[in-house]
Amino acid sequence: MKVWQDGRLVDAGEARIDPFDRGFCLGDGVAESIRAQSGKVMRLASHLARLHSGAGALGITIPCSDKEIVEALSATLVANGLAHGMLRLMISRGPAPGGLATPERTCPSMVILAGPAAAEPPPAKAIIASVTRRNEFSPTARFKTLNDLDNILARREAERLRADDALLLNSQGRLAESTIANLFLVIDGDILTPPVNEGALPGVMRAEVIDRLGAATAQLNPADLASASEAFLTNAGGIRALVTVDGKPIGNGREGSVTARLKAAVS
Amino acid sequence: MKVWQDGRLVDAGEARIDPFDRGFCLGDGVAESIRAQSGKVMRLASHLARLHSGAGALGITIPCSDKEIVEALSATLVANGLAHGMLRLMISRGPAPGGLATPERTCPSMVILAGPAAAEPPPAKAIIASVTRRNEFSPTARFKTLNDLDNILARREAERLRADDALLLNSQGRLAESTIANLFLVIDGDILTPPVNEGALPGVMRAEVIDRLGAATAQLNPADLASASEAFLTNAGGIRALVTVDGKPIGNGREGSVTARLKAAVS
Repeated sequence: MKVWQDGRLVDAGEARIDPFDRGFCLGDGVAESIRAQSGKVMRLASHLARLHSGAGALGITIPCSDKEIVEALSATLVANGLAHGMLRLMISRGPAPGGLATPERTCPSMVILAGPAAAEPPPAKAIIASVTRRNEFSPTARFKTLNDLDNILARREAERLRADDALLLNSQGRLAESTIANLFLVIDGDILTPPVNEGALPGVMRAEVIDRLGAATAQLNPADLASASEAFLTNAGGIRALVTVDGKPIGNGREGSVTARLKAAVS
Repeated sequence: MKVWQDGRLVDAGEARIDPFDRGFCLGDGVAESIRAQSGKVMRLASHLARLHSGAGALGITIPCSDKEIVEALSATLVANGLAHGMLRLMISRGPAPGGLATPERTCPSMVILAGPAAAEPPPAKAIIASVTRRNEFSPTARFKTLNDLDNILARREAERLRADDALLLNSQGRLAESTIANLFLVIDGDILTPPVNEGALPGVMRAEVIDRLGAATAQLNPADLASASEAFLTNAGGIRALVTVDGKPIGNGREGSVTARLKAAVS
């Protein structure tokens, strides 16, 4: 297995994160999870735009050009013998002495991991996480970071309840997204998803569903799940029907026609 | 410089975090910042209690006994030639393939970094962070973790405004704590600090001030800053007077007598 690190491919067993790296000590960095299909890195412009937005918000200098990032992503895919796969790109602020203060000089770290694409999953059964909520006040809700503990806690709650995923409420008790995906509900024929200021990550697949397929943003409450004729989840990996929440079926409890149409449209 | 890693002391340049370590990829781990004075590791029982509480909440198995942790902390201090210093203990879930799902087998990583104690800082000037808020709904507000981005964002806002620290509001707009410390206000002679369910970390120095010195918990609003005769911040490093917030003096804008008394009592 090969890992891209700071400008070159290395054997995974030789790649080394410094224990003083703020990515490890503080989760001080940005990330993107990017799908590759038939050797092609998908929706690259959207991922790069969000990466720059996140790095800008944190004041982290991306250590190479977009062209170099694209070459590194492709090289990592090829080196691991993957045509289809998921790439995880991570850029941290780099090693620094302890404490939160912004270090005077930093040398950001860039790491790319590659893994096989997951098989297409069955329709999802989710819970509403009770253990934690999404912080819609945080800029970190608007890009992908190295801080995933709330998602991990909600995912663990889902695992305990034998569900596939968990929906996160925001601080006001409204639906924000799932631990790994954006949430869409089909209500009275409208395709609706929570707006970013409700704590929804501006997902690349979410943007595509909104732009290409006419979905709209709306505040959504847990009670709206009962009004939905169907629901689905989107992330870089694709679109997945959501068929039950807390054991209650959405619509008829099966993948709906809107979901099927979208899956075909965005593949 | 020596670093404790997974059972032994190694040169800092040789210590290696696996790039697949969930501590790096996801911030999936717990931490403690512990003060050492005259070669003694301070408030150890409180730090260990919180460490266990956090690891339990995340379902991370601490890879050694408390006795081994204590020995490792002391050994790291000695190996770095420090009598006074700050120790950073970090335990992550360890390396795993990508994704949020709890890995079937994990081998948690334990790292201890040591640095010199900071000189006693002057009284603090703080801002109220506008860039982000504390998520009091998250269990991660109740222990120290490898997820520090909200604190980093608030600290960077303070740096831009030439302040020493930033106070974080919770999702309801009430005072929670600072980026690195608990907040206490002295109002009408009462020593008050936000309760844990408001998003305050249960800090070890906070507990000592409450238990030994009769401070009480109370919901605190930004408007209460104007009513305070003095204010101070507490963390493992000690007690620090807080003398201005957003440029407005607290009380007479100097370290107060209650703060001075507490500093002497807990040293």
